[in-house]
Amino acid sequence: MKSSLPKERIRFLAEDYVRGFIEYCQFEPEVIERGYFQSGVIIREHHRQQDGFIHAGVMATMADHTAGYAAFTTVPEDFQILTIEFKVNFLRPAYGSRLVCRSRVIREGTQIIISESEVFDRREEGEVPVAKALVTLMAVHKDKLSPKG
Amino acid sequence: MKSSLPKERIRFLAEDYVRGFIEYCQFEPEVIERGYFQSGVIIREHHRQQDGFIHAGVMATMADHTAGYAAFTTVPEDFQILTIEFKVNFLRPAYGSRLVCRSRVIREGTQIIISESEVFDRREEGEVPVAKALVTLMAVHKDKLSPKG
Amino acid sequence: MKSSLPKERIRFLAEDYVRGFIEYCQFEPEVIERGYFQSGVIIREHHRQQDGFIHAGVMATMADHTAGYAAFTTVPEDFQILTIEFKVNFLRPAYGSRLVCRSRVIREGTQIIISESEVFDRREEGEVPVAKALVTLMAVHKDKLSPKG
Amino acid sequence: MKSSLPKERIRFLAEDYVRGFIEYCQFEPEVIERGYFQSGVIIREHHRQQDGFIHAGVMATMADHTAGYAAFTTVPEDFQILTIEFKVNFLRPAYGSRLVCRSRVIREGTQIIISESEVFDRREEGEVPVAKALVTLMAVHKDKLSPKG
Repeated sequence: MKSSLPKERIRFLAEDYVRGFIEYCQFEPEVIERGYFQSGVIIREHHRQQDGFIHAGVMATMADHTAGYAAFTTVPEDFQILTIEFKVNFLRPAYGSRLVCRSRVIREGTQIIISESEVFDRREEGEVPVAKALVTLMAVHKDKLSPKG
Repeated sequence: MKSSLPKERIRFLAEDYVRGFIEYCQFEPEVIERGYFQSGVIIREHHRQQDGFIHAGVMATMADHTAGYAAFTTVPEDFQILTIEFKVNFLRPAYGSRLVCRSRVIREGTQIIISESEVFDRREEGEVPVAKALVTLMAVHKDKLSPKG
Repeated sequence: MKSSLPKERIRFLAEDYVRGFIEYCQFEPEVIERGYFQSGVIIREHHRQQDGFIHAGVMATMADHTAGYAAFTTVPEDFQILTIEFKVNFLRPAYGSRLVCRSRVIREGTQIIISESEVFDRREEGEVPVAKALVTLMAVHKDKLSPKG
Repeated sequence: MKSSLPKERIRFLAEDYVRGFIEYCQFEPEVIERGYFQSGVIIREHHRQQDGFIHAGVMATMADHTAGYAAFTTVPEDFQILTIEFKVNFLRPAYGSRLVCRSRVIREGTQIIISESEVFDRREEGEVPVAKALVTLMAVHKDKLSPKG
């Protein structure tokens, strides 16, 4: 992992990435650089939908979460990231054994950050792009975040 | 469940709704009518993110999948539904014990169908809207769907 | 125009609505209430595209701008509104003699505001919905806006 | 203009690009290749909004229309293109003397085509990205298009 981020920050982001719903979905961080985050997941039966394809929700969740962590690499350590909104296009059905998501910050900011995510389906013949997302995020100071009131 | 759909069709859609990733996410169908689908989920720790809020991916997956089944109620029985794209806005952080998603078809079609989903967070003080999505779907004849071919 | 907004504020918003590109597009404000803005336009040849339909850009511009002014009705007088992003679905081709756009704030905020716009095509047989948009806006204090500096 | 498209096709697309609302907006085609379309506009007062910035609707219209013509370069000559939906993020306020839009098809198809548009603001210091859009388009056979019934 080449990066201008301090090693402890990278370690923190890698561990923080995999919590709650994301751990449940078995996504894993792969590459972390300033302004860039890559994640992957090995596809199991519970990632598919009724017709055998990988569920759109798996790709959307990956695109959103990884975009958020790309943003997370660009803010001071006392800030958290929340998703304001995202839009995702599914380019073709995904059915491979593994998904990879590459997210890049395309507009840095102290409040509003915009990331772009591309999800690839790893098939026998190689990597095929299956989803592309534009994600609008907000950096919020830790002290202003309080889930339960 | 008031509906002009045949009982067997409703039963099929209710069972079909809960497969693969959706079963894994523990979403459940609640109301099925022609052009309308409502689902719910009891929130557990694995639906949350690193800060204790319900993960955006949970709401996005629910908004997408339920929108798809709202579309599914409007097509002939030999058609399946695929998501072309969706966009979701997160209106405020969600942290309650239960989510409900209400999806309506706002534009029927033989090929392109557009649904709208609203996700509500059930808190002590009542239901609060937490996400809104616009979803573009495509009806595809069963014979043209082949995940691995 | 029923509204809890002061008359002078309504007059200001109505005049401010129609400037620059919007005046050029000949859109006009129709109803202004707190959290709601309605606009209209009489369709001329220059609003159409190569196939005779009303151009998607006309509907998108109307959906965006009217959503912004719906947000504008909810903020203090020393704040301006900028569009962060929007998404618009075109429900069916529009070809009538007049468009009407109805925008509502669906999430108020001191920074981030979310509005929803619906565009209707007035045809002989009545009003037909032709576009629906979700718009994310930001309230910015006047002193922080400086186009050329 | 390097391209594998026949010269007459390029000439047709260049002329067809500038009709109705687009002519009114004074956008001009600049580069046309298979799967790629670039357009530009010299900014005048009527392209701005109330605060002096270039109006979001100008950028959205340019992103949509140019994306549509990028798609148009990939379909047989008896097909037309309609926009199903698009989403656009505004990366920063635009205020320069000229906009350039570069659109690429990121997913070809016989029915559904997905393009991506990037809009740049030409300022004294160079080109600055100001908007990015994902656009979902549909190829429709000419005989099935009939604006007025």
